[in-house]
Amino acid sequence: MFQSFVATTTPATGAARLAALRTVLAEEGLAGFLVPRADAHQGETVAPRDERLAWLTGFTGSAGTAVVLAEEAAVFADGRYTLQVGDQIDTTAYSPVASHKVKVADWLAERLGEGDVLGYDPWLHGAEEIARLGERLADCGATLRPIPNPIDRIWEDQPAPPQAPIVPYPEALAGKSAAEKRADLAADLREEGIAAAVLTLPDSIAWLLNIRGSDVERRPIPLVFALLHADGTVTLIADPAKIGEEPADHLGPEVSVVPPDVFGATLDALSGPVAVDKASAPIWVSDRLKDAGIDVVWRQDPCILPKASKTEAEIAGAREAHLRDGAAMVEFLAWLDQAAPSGTLTEISVVQQLEAFRRATNALRDLSFDTICGAGPDGAIVHYRVTEATDRPVTPGDILLVDSGGQYLDGTTDITRTVATGPAPEDAIRAFTLVLKGMIAISRARWPEGLAGRDLDALARINLWQAGFDYDHGTGHGVGAYLGTHEGPQSLSRRGEVALAPGMILSNEPGYYREGAFGIRIENLIVVTSPEVPPLGDRPMLGFETLTYVPIDRRLIDTALLTAEERIWLDAYHAETRARLSSRLSDDAADWLAQATEPL
Amino acid sequence: MFQSFVATTTPATGAARLAALRTVLAEEGLAGFLVPRADAHQGETVAPRDERLAWLTGFTGSAGTAVVLAEEAAVFADGRYTLQVGDQIDTTAYSPVASHKVKVADWLAERLGEGDVLGYDPWLHGAEEIARLGERLADCGATLRPIPNPIDRIWEDQPAPPQAPIVPYPEALAGKSAAEKRADLAADLREEGIAAAVLTLPDSIAWLLNIRGSDVERRPIPLVFALLHADGTVTLIADPAKIGEEPADHLGPEVSVVPPDVFGATLDALSGPVAVDKASAPIWVSDRLKDAGIDVVWRQDPCILPKASKTEAEIAGAREAHLRDGAAMVEFLAWLDQAAPSGTLTEISVVQQLEAFRRATNALRDLSFDTICGAGPDGAIVHYRVTEATDRPVTPGDILLVDSGGQYLDGTTDITRTVATGPAPEDAIRAFTLVLKGMIAISRARWPEGLAGRDLDALARINLWQAGFDYDHGTGHGVGAYLGTHEGPQSLSRRGEVALAPGMILSNEPGYYREGAFGIRIENLIVVTSPEVPPLGDRPMLGFETLTYVPIDRRLIDTALLTAEERIWLDAYHAETRARLSSRLSDDAADWLAQATEPL
Repeated sequence: MFQSFVATTTPATGAARLAALRTVLAEEGLAGFLVPRADAHQGETVAPRDERLAWLTGFTGSAGTAVVLAEEAAVFADGRYTLQVGDQIDTTAYSPVASHKVKVADWLAERLGEGDVLGYDPWLHGAEEIARLGERLADCGATLRPIPNPIDRIWEDQPAPPQAPIVPYPEALAGKSAAEKRADLAADLREEGIAAAVLTLPDSIAWLLNIRGSDVERRPIPLVFALLHADGTVTLIADPAKIGEEPADHLGPEVSVVPPDVFGATLDALSGPVAVDKASAPIWVSDRLKDAGIDVVWRQDPCILPKASKTEAEIAGAREAHLRDGAAMVEFLAWLDQAAPSGTLTEISVVQQLEAFRRATNALRDLSFDTICGAGPDGAIVHYRVTEATDRPVTPGDILLVDSGGQYLDGTTDITRTVATGPAPEDAIRAFTLVLKGMIAISRARWPEGLAGRDLDALARINLWQAGFDYDHGTGHGVGAYLGTHEGPQSLSRRGEVALAPGMILSNEPGYYREGAFGIRIENLIVVTSPEVPPLGDRPMLGFETLTYVPIDRRLIDTALLTAEERIWLDAYHAETRARLSSRLSDDAADWLAQATEPL
Repeated sequence: MFQSFVATTTPATGAARLAALRTVLAEEGLAGFLVPRADAHQGETVAPRDERLAWLTGFTGSAGTAVVLAEEAAVFADGRYTLQVGDQIDTTAYSPVASHKVKVADWLAERLGEGDVLGYDPWLHGAEEIARLGERLADCGATLRPIPNPIDRIWEDQPAPPQAPIVPYPEALAGKSAAEKRADLAADLREEGIAAAVLTLPDSIAWLLNIRGSDVERRPIPLVFALLHADGTVTLIADPAKIGEEPADHLGPEVSVVPPDVFGATLDALSGPVAVDKASAPIWVSDRLKDAGIDVVWRQDPCILPKASKTEAEIAGAREAHLRDGAAMVEFLAWLDQAAPSGTLTEISVVQQLEAFRRATNALRDLSFDTICGAGPDGAIVHYRVTEATDRPVTPGDILLVDSGGQYLDGTTDITRTVATGPAPEDAIRAFTLVLKGMIAISRARWPEGLAGRDLDALARINLWQAGFDYDHGTGHGVGAYLGTHEGPQSLSRRGEVALAPGMILSNEPGYYREGAFGIRIENLIVVTSPEVPPLGDRPMLGFETLTYVPIDRRLIDTALLTAEERIWLDAYHAETRARLSSRLSDDAADWLAQATEPL
């Protein structure tokens, strides 16, 4: 099993570790220190050695920051973690603070005074973030100081950095050679008069060099840094032990490898303006360059945009990965329909069975993320992760929300289906249908070039808005090609300001959550295309091709609320699902699929 | 008649006037001079004395700039004026340049050189604009110099500044006293530590002081400046001759009036930071303040946001103005239906008849703008203004687009109806129905607080996009309360970044234009409201109330393309139109309305 259901939090150790940290801070003459849930690579999942926040406070959420002062300490976490923080930390040692209501900077500015110095680990914060914090602290006369992470001094059994091998990613799947990618980006740098770009995001480096890794869970990346030089060569900052013979051949003579302990010296030796992404690079990088007298140019990581627009080969891979994953999902849904009426299932057993069906494909490299499986009221908790402590029986009649995905060599999947486990209440059927209408609206959308996700977001929501409903998350996020399940810069949301371009893969996942009752989300992955101009049309438009083919629960649809076009779309989607998946299924699942995809 | 159909352009005089201007520039040692179609108040319509661009070049469009150099001269105009520029200017003297393709700054940077000085009139350009232009010219070593407008020296019979009287605007219609408005805005200034705000937009001053004027056509404003002081008093910069006894009483002792020739000295006498809107104030203002050693704070004109959210009284006035105007429109449409089959109508006769019906209300103060009336292919020219030279017969079977509005004391209207004058082709009916679907989508929209017009724009367009169609203008603009027909900052468009707030009036006017064939636009005015949360809804939403009630041509609707909700909306709209207008109509028009508003 990839997924574990054991909550590893240890609130009881919080007070002692806090005291040890304060002793170090006092020795260093610091008024306080920041402990973000972060690594040097902006990772959503981090290596065990970077779980400093959980080690110190017990809080295991995927985002948050502890702020430790001499007399006071707080754990900042956003709305989705309000309950969890309270359960996981020792509240006599730490105050929980809602980060969507109080900013760390404002909280600090109220507590620090003239001459106070706040420490931070320069590997865990970006230049932009530190600049903003510094400005705010100037109001109260406090300053910031970068220091080696004091947690690493007091954490005796801190795990070592991961040493998973780097593996080549087949060019047939990438659709473009690493040499071509390097040459194209280097040409851009030369045009801008830039000598080199520092890459700190492992996804960028994995994409650029056509490599993958397994240093963290759920994301097939190596934790490395790199320099892309204007002549197209690359310096890869990685422990040479990670690179075997085959990967070394794959990287070729234009990629040199230097160990992490000479990263700084390698930066010092650069000359000419060096590009750094202020949104993602640790401030350690830009500070080091500046100290060496090298011009820093703030520029977006050059891999981000080209990586977002997938090649034909990557899209073909995504199609195949989605059919494989879709077949596993259909086996799972067929099993669920048969097993749920017994009333013996629990959320954990459902998650385990789904993982088993994915493993049975013999192609699953990892999950895309821990499966979210919420029965009844648990479905209304948007980022719910079941543990042994919260595991709930699936009672026949519950609405069950299952958000999951697989990492396959040819593609990353992410799918949510919400299903009835018995006769569903009328209001859940109405809400499901309104969510479905939004999901179909995005699937069918056409729009002129130049628009961003923000410009389409209302299409997914308008039917909910009319009913006085909404959902407090984006409609969709970018998705990588056997890389991150969350990948920028594109998104379908109020924050989606990047123009949608052909080849971008996104999720399409509107939802509705009724606290204490049920949650609904329907999610497919889609890819931006340039469809033909329809007959009589006078302008080219962009559109989406759907990648995910898995039935949508017809028992939860109020057909009377659908327009003719929506009904046509859904029937066609189901017919296509049957046509694409039937041959990949067990007989039982194929029978189940036939009835699940009947026209409305 | 308000509207004239005579084109007043005089291309033949262009060369001589250009030569005279060049003589002045040579005397001043200038390499060139800018002649924008502008006044000191960002006016869309300007007084005759400010029609310097038309006087110099012959070009009478509502936007454009002449750039005059010693050897070369160009007239910049955007896409909608491409044909008109060619017709109106002497192309041996001026080159027409498409301003949506070539920027004035880039054109200049290619032609000017080291040491060259370009003159500009500091009353006709904003600080932001001049700063940007200066930066670009620095690339070629040229500089900018403010000078008294040389056109005013060579234009012998230049009209005098308009001297129309200022009149009080009834508080019962404004819904808030000028004293209250002054006090509220002054409190904001004090909170920001600002001593005074310079107001250069006549709409702002008219709103703030509850006054109106008639210095320009189509917009009931006085061309004045003002200073709002942090103590709530106002200095109005206006010729005292414009202010009779009643207006002086109305303004009261807290508003002092100083003549325009001491505007500069009045600015010099200020102390403390002064707020100037860099987007709209002439650079003359900020330069004068800086020269006097006064701190300039760039800040949006403080009237803009409060003016945009209409009071209950203003909304009530708008409702009444729209019913009055709607009745005139119905008389017009009834007449048109009866007169068009004869084949004797022309665009001008249609415009005149519509104006006659509006005048017959005995409440019409002015048109909101020159009526746009395009038969057949003329309807596809988005900003078409018929003249004697372009007047086209209305041939039975033509699609006729009529965009018009009236200025009434209680409100400003703006309405477009597109009607069939005989059996319409199928593709026009399809396009009309797609446009109508977008217009209904906006009318029915609900959305959570905080969204801007940009976030709703797709709702108006998605049905057109699906068909490979679109329109190259915004979906809607803000509208004033007996003020400008175009009023910011809100808009429904890709540029609409200001959050929509209750009380904001907007147009809702999607369209479709088939070049050489026909144009379609359907436009109502709408106002942002806070409707009740629908049954079972769990969040408050904002919505729109429709102000315009005039039938939409049922002969152009393909009912099969409408959803059930759209059909219900249209039938209810028509029933409401009949209920609201019948009692205000002649018998013939009432009969016509009864059949025009039958359910689909």
